[in-house]
Amino acid sequence: MEFPGAYADRGVFVCFEGGEGGGKSTQARLLAERLEAAGHRVLLTREPGGTEVGQRLRDIVLSPETGDLADRTEVLLYAADKAEHVETVVLPALARGEVVITDRYVDSTLAYQGAGRGLGTTGVEQVARWATGDLRPHLTVLLDLPPADGLGRFEGRDRIEGQGLEFHERVRESFRDLAAADPDHYLVLDARGAVEEIAAAIHDRLAPLLEGAT
Amino acid sequence: MEFPGAYADRGVFVCFEGGEGGGKSTQARLLAERLEAAGHRVLLTREPGGTEVGQRLRDIVLSPETGDLADRTEVLLYAADKAEHVETVVLPALARGEVVITDRYVDSTLAYQGAGRGLGTTGVEQVARWATGDLRPHLTVLLDLPPADGLGRFEGRDRIEGQGLEFHERVRESFRDLAAADPDHYLVLDARGAVEEIAAAIHDRLAPLLEGAT
Repeated sequence: MEFPGAYADRGVFVCFEGGEGGGKSTQARLLAERLEAAGHRVLLTREPGGTEVGQRLRDIVLSPETGDLADRTEVLLYAADKAEHVETVVLPALARGEVVITDRYVDSTLAYQGAGRGLGTTGVEQVARWATGDLRPHLTVLLDLPPADGLGRFEGRDRIEGQGLEFHERVRESFRDLAAADPDHYLVLDARGAVEEIAAAIHDRLAPLLEGAT
Repeated sequence: MEFPGAYADRGVFVCFEGGEGGGKSTQARLLAERLEAAGHRVLLTREPGGTEVGQRLRDIVLSPETGDLADRTEVLLYAADKAEHVETVVLPALARGEVVITDRYVDSTLAYQGAGRGLGTTGVEQVARWATGDLRPHLTVLLDLPPADGLGRFEGRDRIEGQGLEFHERVRESFRDLAAADPDHYLVLDARGAVEEIAAAIHDRLAPLLEGAT
């Protein structure tokens, strides 16, 4: 199998990250609509669950009925979802020169499983990078929010969101650390701002990357 | 999460490996019966599918209806099955001092996905070792068989067994190489021998390891 290298040389790969309740799905959809209206070919997708197999894995990982999973099992199921998603959805669309917008990607694994579950980042990162062939987004938008603000909207909805506040604080710090370490490829926004203002800020930051995309 | 170290210091961990049609399941069962009759506490299990989650993953990986999976997806699903199996089944039984006999383990991943699929061993091995916390069997019994002999019995039964003969030749060589590299922890037997003779050879080799097991 060929690695695509760190960054795809065709298309534009945009990723939305952040905790629960920060509006990732809304902003991803607004961005997709705006780019499509401007004539771009856009693929809007998500992890976990952006493929048929991924949907079955999403059901296993997120269903409260699954009960306890070993921490490593959870990491590896998310990684399997990523591998299938990158190979069968993301890479083909990028090769066609499209804008691929994904709701969650590798950073979510590092934040939720590595930091949140306390598994550490080394092994978790190796697994996630191997799964994705180390394909990196051209831009990751981090919608940052204090967990107490975000969780009120979704309390106890699934296995991950049902974790305690301390877990979600570790997750938030991990997202912020990842962004701080690579500012050229991250845009960090306060998720408590007005939806339209956030959407405009994302579009402005992305605009220069769109030259050359179909 | 704590690693148990390379070899469990309680219990005895025995693994059966080899290609299709070599009698692994039969020999695993015969060994379990013989050890139980001698008063040992034995746990007979398998990969994939030795846990509830693993059974769902086994269904995804082996069902012909799944269609093509990305190679990495397959590796990671097998690894997720292993992680759950080791953490929730194998380690607790070893901690109780039992004899754990598993039908397939890490070598199957290295042979089928690493060598068979041509993914190479480095990344695949890292993933499988991380999944299992690098827990190694005290003894791996390799039931060796030319693929042409074994496959006739099961032709086209599932996604893996439906691969061509060349694939299964690479798998066989990989199993043999793993055994040759660590003779202290492997017993290689010609799977075409008589069932009772093979069973006796396995028991003889295992006997010294059983002192101290419950």
